Amino acid sequence: MMSEHPISKYPVPELADLPEDIRNIMLAVQEKAGFIPNVFLTMAHRPDEFRAFFAYHDALMLRESGLSKAEREMIVVATSGANRCLYCAVAHGAVLRIYAKNPHIADQIAIQHPKADITERQKAMLDFAVKLARTPEAMAEADHQELRGHGFSEEDIWDIGAITALFALSNRMAHLIDMRPNNEFYLMGRVPPTKNN
Amino acid sequence: MMSEHPISKYPVPELADLPEDIRNIMLAVQEKAGFIPNVFLTMAHRPDEFRAFFAYHDALMLRESGLSKAEREMIVVATSGANRCLYCAVAHGAVLRIYAKNPHIADQIAIQHPKADITERQKAMLDFAVKLARTPEAMAEADHQELRGHGFSEEDIWDIGAITALFALSNRMAHLIDMRPNNEFYLMGRVPPTKNN
Amino acid sequence: MMSEHPISKYPVPELADLPEDIRNIMLAVQEKAGFIPNVFLTMAHRPDEFRAFFAYHDALMLRESGLSKAEREMIVVATSGANRCLYCAVAHGAVLRIYAKNPHIADQIAIQHPKADITERQKAMLDFAVKLARTPEAMAEADHQELRGHGFSEEDIWDIGAITALFALSNRMAHLIDMRPNNEFYLMGRVPPTKNN
Amino acid sequence: MMSEHPISKYPVPELADLPEDIRNIMLAVQEKAGFIPNVFLTMAHRPDEFRAFFAYHDALMLRESGLSKAEREMIVVATSGANRCLYCAVAHGAVLRIYAKNPHIADQIAIQHPKADITERQKAMLDFAVKLARTPEAMAEADHQELRGHGFSEEDIWDIGAITALFALSNRMAHLIDMRPNNEFYLMGRVPPTKNN
Amino acid sequence: MMSEHPISKYPVPELADLPEDIRNIMLAVQEKAGFIPNVFLTMAHRPDEFRAFFAYHDALMLRESGLSKAEREMIVVATSGANRCLYCAVAHGAVLRIYAKNPHIADQIAIQHPKADITERQKAMLDFAVKLARTPEAMAEADHQELRGHGFSEEDIWDIGAITALFALSNRMAHLIDMRPNNEFYLMGRVPPTKNN
Amino acid sequence: MMSEHPISKYPVPELADLPEDIRNIMLAVQEKAGFIPNVFLTMAHRPDEFRAFFAYHDALMLRESGLSKAEREMIVVATSGANRCLYCAVAHGAVLRIYAKNPHIADQIAIQHPKADITERQKAMLDFAVKLARTPEAMAEADHQELRGHGFSEEDIWDIGAITALFALSNRMAHLIDMRPNNEFYLMGRVPPTKNN
Repeated sequence: MMSEHPISKYPVPELADLPEDIRNIMLAVQEKAGFIPNVFLTMAHRPDEFRAFFAYHDALMLRESGLSKAEREMIVVATSGANRCLYCAVAHGAVLRIYAKNPHIADQIAIQHPKADITERQKAMLDFAVKLARTPEAMAEADHQELRGHGFSEEDIWDIGAITALFALSNRMAHLIDMRPNNEFYLMGRVPPTKNN
Repeated sequence: MMSEHPISKYPVPELADLPEDIRNIMLAVQEKAGFIPNVFLTMAHRPDEFRAFFAYHDALMLRESGLSKAEREMIVVATSGANRCLYCAVAHGAVLRIYAKNPHIADQIAIQHPKADITERQKAMLDFAVKLARTPEAMAEADHQELRGHGFSEEDIWDIGAITALFALSNRMAHLIDMRPNNEFYLMGRVPPTKNN
Repeated sequence: MMSEHPISKYPVPELADLPEDIRNIMLAVQEKAGFIPNVFLTMAHRPDEFRAFFAYHDALMLRESGLSKAEREMIVVATSGANRCLYCAVAHGAVLRIYAKNPHIADQIAIQHPKADITERQKAMLDFAVKLARTPEAMAEADHQELRGHGFSEEDIWDIGAITALFALSNRMAHLIDMRPNNEFYLMGRVPPTKNN
Repeated sequence: MMSEHPISKYPVPELADLPEDIRNIMLAVQEKAGFIPNVFLTMAHRPDEFRAFFAYHDALMLRESGLSKAEREMIVVATSGANRCLYCAVAHGAVLRIYAKNPHIADQIAIQHPKADITERQKAMLDFAVKLARTPEAMAEADHQELRGHGFSEEDIWDIGAITALFALSNRMAHLIDMRPNNEFYLMGRVPPTKNN
Repeated sequence: MMSEHPISKYPVPELADLPEDIRNIMLAVQEKAGFIPNVFLTMAHRPDEFRAFFAYHDALMLRESGLSKAEREMIVVATSGANRCLYCAVAHGAVLRIYAKNPHIADQIAIQHPKADITERQKAMLDFAVKLARTPEAMAEADHQELRGHGFSEEDIWDIGAITALFALSNRMAHLIDMRPNNEFYLMGRVPPTKNN
Repeated sequence: MMSEHPISKYPVPELADLPEDIRNIMLAVQEKAGFIPNVFLTMAHRPDEFRAFFAYHDALMLRESGLSKAEREMIVVATSGANRCLYCAVAHGAVLRIYAKNPHIADQIAIQHPKADITERQKAMLDFAVKLARTPEAMAEADHQELRGHGFSEEDIWDIGAITALFALSNRMAHLIDMRPNNEFYLMGRVPPTKNN
């Protein structure tokens, strides 16, 4: 499961040593994905923060929303690319490819979202997210108006902003501990699941 | 409790309409502080996010740590000043003045922490935090070494980074919704308690 | 009069050793304010520069103008906040609170002027000032047009720009010599005069 | 004396209409230089500010100093180049060429001072000045130590900083009013005096 | 050969209409790669510039050098990532994966080269290249010394700098014309040619 | 031909040692200009790159174009000023003065092109060029529209962008090798030809 490179600057607990609720979360994700993403393993160094982080994540990423799941992952990939966060860009890039059923979109959004094969509405969403991610002090009412003009509701805008904010946290944790993406993520969603090429 | 200005771009729920666990948190903080800080009222618009946010906050700000509570608030004030977040700079500035028993320290740290009346060790802590807050992509092992040279443990460094990361989230939420500080915060900790409020 | 911390990297002259005109200025300000602001004491290290500086200051800050005295101090506080000048933000923040009879306005303007409790016209004035302070090379005729659209006269615009320019000088002198604000400034204008001083 | 282009966005007073002290200053500089530099004509729109500006200028640029007059002009040219101030770069570039008896030095310093034909000590002086000009908030004791290591005295450092500060003001006034350099400055000091003009 | 999206803002010539030398270059690359990379098709809009560009490219990328071919592609990927050039990051990312026989390295270098699985020497090479790419004005002799300390020869340093310079050109052409990467590049080098995983 | 200062960090070949085609180019330019510009001498260290560079240069600077030769040099001077490239700003400044028959225009454009004595159309051209030079990732269709609004054709826009791109390369080579301008350039075009040289 781990490469020869450490996946964190900090100790990574053994599954057997973890509180049961956290171990159960890990086993569930392993069951579903076939491996445990390193963010689970590395954040488990601090169980209370682990619980709060994934509660926050699920509150935003799993809720009913005017944004599709692919759109929510676009926000993660665009802002993580802007913050040059290797873990989040690679891991959520994989998830985005799968949700969007598009093998090219994650690279496009991570590198230069204005030229990605997405709608103008989605580009406006990512402009807002990247501005909030990089220069939060510059946000103004005009930025909200721009999103409303593309048909986003007030709750959609909260979702866009809150996902950006959560990954502002997540990107900084990944930079802090040198979180390394699992090798599995690099190829996920690039080739059809049953066969290749 | 509210000034004539709105405290959020979003609806602020009535206490009576809130889930009981959230209402109880609010009543407890009101009991202790004499008022409900606006971050509680405005974040309650999304109960699940409210719960995750304050769970994260308490996991970091209330835990046993090599950092004093005043030092943790210094990190919040310095990074919120760097991010020009009015709510966090004013509200946590008040808390910092009280914990540090120093009426000048919050203004000094919010405006220019390298010239504040704090120790060299604390300045190194804030240099690390502000760098992670503003240019997370630039963090390197040398930054960790610098902190170790000032006697910070690995767990202390996680605390410094994680508090910075949480307030990277919090500052962006405040910018997103135009969160307004309660008037009470501006004066708290500036005058001896017997002469004030 | 002085705290335990030095108020300048440079020698601070004794009043008795100063040229009579400079000493008289100091005694007059002490009579009025109850203490001598450190900018007078520290700049007196160079009497000719002292005289030119305060002549320039008075020419702009005391003249008849379309800008109120509070508005002129807003410019000082906003640009000094942008330049992270502790002396000017704290000392002129105090003066601004008194002129504006508003205990919150200085913190709001120093940290994030676009969200301060001021008029749209005043926000436009501060946008112009902060742009000139931080990126003078980017100023264009369109910036002047914006101010004219808010009803500022040509002479008002000169005042806005010239106050910004003078405090570009002043902020740099303060950074150069590590000028420390008097403790008195931190609380001035925050509590009604009968309960304070 | 004036080109077909306006030399300021603001009215330029006639010599006959000026206060006598200011007119005398203009006549003296015209006598010496053969023309009146536009900074005199344009700043005379506000006589009190004119007097303070030139008093400050003379206090710094004419005083006894450990810096030569050419070195003082180097500071003006380097920081005005960094601030992209056309008037100051062109006008003081001319003065620098004359003081330094070097026809290439002003272009070198305005464009890229680290590669100019000057001493390492002078490059350190200009590094300090340009840092103070562009990012005053980043100045630290280490910058002063660097200059001391090159043999600059404390008073020399004040001179370097104060000249930088004065031209931070001057550059912003020039940007504010679109001050235009006199055509005479472009060629001054580029050819031996007997073959030129 | 072309996706449904245009590959350039400019007309893309038909092979039949091209000068023979250019058509032969295209046929040769198609023979070798199985498709014609879009940079050939789009730059052919200007045959003389096409010839000069590929002559420059081959002079640097095919010459004998102290840098391996993989290292030269690392420079292209790192600087193109820094410049957010989609075409170059994706197309040269593919070439890098193939030369380095490493399916993860291109994503790592494009997003955050300091955390890539490469040697310290290679990281120093990329630090130099990215600095020259983004802030050429800041390059100093110390940057050359750093490379010499890692064993790079003077000619190696020229190669590093010149490849960076050529892709400074290339990235800007790609941004100018909205050059689109061929779909083929996204997957190249990610799976073994004969089988997958 | 060479000053006492080295003109490159790298060896400068003797004319006698150069391939005949390159020597002939040098002799031709010497015949025409009266001296060999240092870019020819320094780039000859790598003959293949020399040939590609000057082929690219001539393809853009000598072609039939909607841009005059003076306008093409304006692009070089503006972007080289923005990149603080001493060689290109000084050498191409000389060429610009001669083509434009204007002794002031190069200094104006190198320091602050928006205030130069050029047309609004030319200012728009330089805004586009400087944006592409410094922040290529920010270029958008709106920038092209702005140029079209000033009457530039699609081919004109390619010329503007491609000249900018070529000098992005050239400026980086000059920074890499510390290319020094010939002394002759500083005065060229500043005085009428009969009185100069």
